[in-house]
Amino acid sequence: MPDEKEQLQRSWIANAPAWRDAVRERKIDSRRVATDAAIIDAVMSLAPETVLDLGCGEGWLARELSSRNVRVVGVDASRPLVDAAMELGGGSFYAMSYEDVLAAGSPLQAPFDVVVANFSILEEDIGPILTAAGRMLKSGGRFVIQTVHPAFAVGDAAYISGWRTETFAAFDGEWPEPMPWYFRTLTDWVVALSENGFVIAEMREPLDAQRARPLSMIFVCRRA
Amino acid sequence: MPDEKEQLQRSWIANAPAWRDAVRERKIDSRRVATDAAIIDAVMSLAPETVLDLGCGEGWLARELSSRNVRVVGVDASRPLVDAAMELGGGSFYAMSYEDVLAAGSPLQAPFDVVVANFSILEEDIGPILTAAGRMLKSGGRFVIQTVHPAFAVGDAAYISGWRTETFAAFDGEWPEPMPWYFRTLTDWVVALSENGFVIAEMREPLDAQRARPLSMIFVCRRA
Repeated sequence: MPDEKEQLQRSWIANAPAWRDAVRERKIDSRRVATDAAIIDAVMSLAPETVLDLGCGEGWLARELSSRNVRVVGVDASRPLVDAAMELGGGSFYAMSYEDVLAAGSPLQAPFDVVVANFSILEEDIGPILTAAGRMLKSGGRFVIQTVHPAFAVGDAAYISGWRTETFAAFDGEWPEPMPWYFRTLTDWVVALSENGFVIAEMREPLDAQRARPLSMIFVCRRA
Repeated sequence: MPDEKEQLQRSWIANAPAWRDAVRERKIDSRRVATDAAIIDAVMSLAPETVLDLGCGEGWLARELSSRNVRVVGVDASRPLVDAAMELGGGSFYAMSYEDVLAAGSPLQAPFDVVVANFSILEEDIGPILTAAGRMLKSGGRFVIQTVHPAFAVGDAAYISGWRTETFAAFDGEWPEPMPWYFRTLTDWVVALSENGFVIAEMREPLDAQRARPLSMIFVCRRA
């Protein structure tokens, strides 16, 4: 396993308590002002009966969707986050990696109307999660991805795909492990989706209303 | 006709001599360092035998493609630019609006392997050009659009689709008429393409090599 991927998985275990609190206490501005509502709207606009939440974390999105009468299954590679999700309910939760999802199948009650990945695609090689999403979807289903907006998240760095590091310095709380994450240009998103059998049916760019700048990017994808 | 569209068409007639010189003398930095080569590469990667150049201007792209053994038909609503294109050859050129293209059909020797619009989609209502492109394409053909990169061209303005004005103040030469052009967010590009029967098969973001920032956006589209 590449170092970054190993460190990425480790960070979500070590930082689980801090992440749980950050999400549950709504400490992350961009989520509170725009991106939480945006992913709920994007999923609910598809009127799904069943949703697979890939990278569900502590389960907030599953709870929101289940309160809207959607049956949700959530998976996450971080066992402490899955444990936190189970505590509050709102779906069936499983601690498994995306590779595990690929191998799993039936325990997850596939296929689903919608598969959603909310800021949970952080690896360089996204073949496994895209393949898993494709296999878990009903015919005609949609894969909804929310991610940092490549063009607005690039900051002063080069606009070239590559590993970056989140230190959580801007967050309250104790974050023992930095999190590597893979910055992917828009071009490379489209390549990865295309190589794994998806086309973009719709794109959304949730705006910070005050500055009229996108705070994220949402791809609504269907099988090609 | 809305004021902006009328002014847009007028600008390409009044500014035709200055534009012809700017292109032929390679005075536009972004074109010289990246975007000219990028559109040639994007089109030639599709190995077309025939190309329709929508908004061909003074014909540089038609000349480049024809020198690579592609048969090119170019159309532009600005008669003086079409006249300039005819002077240097490299294709068959016609002075017609996108609406005229829709009505024309046979004189243009359709269908084409590739339809290309290189920085020539500047109107708010792009239904006519997208419909025209769709009708002019062979089954399995591709529509290649190069445009300003929405996220990097937005500058300090709000990231919201709307009319902007190019005054050509940064250009040498005499530019009698400002050019209105419609800024379109990425989301709205995808909506417009989708509503007119296209999906994005590939995206390219030609970089300024020195600053590693995209200088444009290229959509390679196919029929949905």
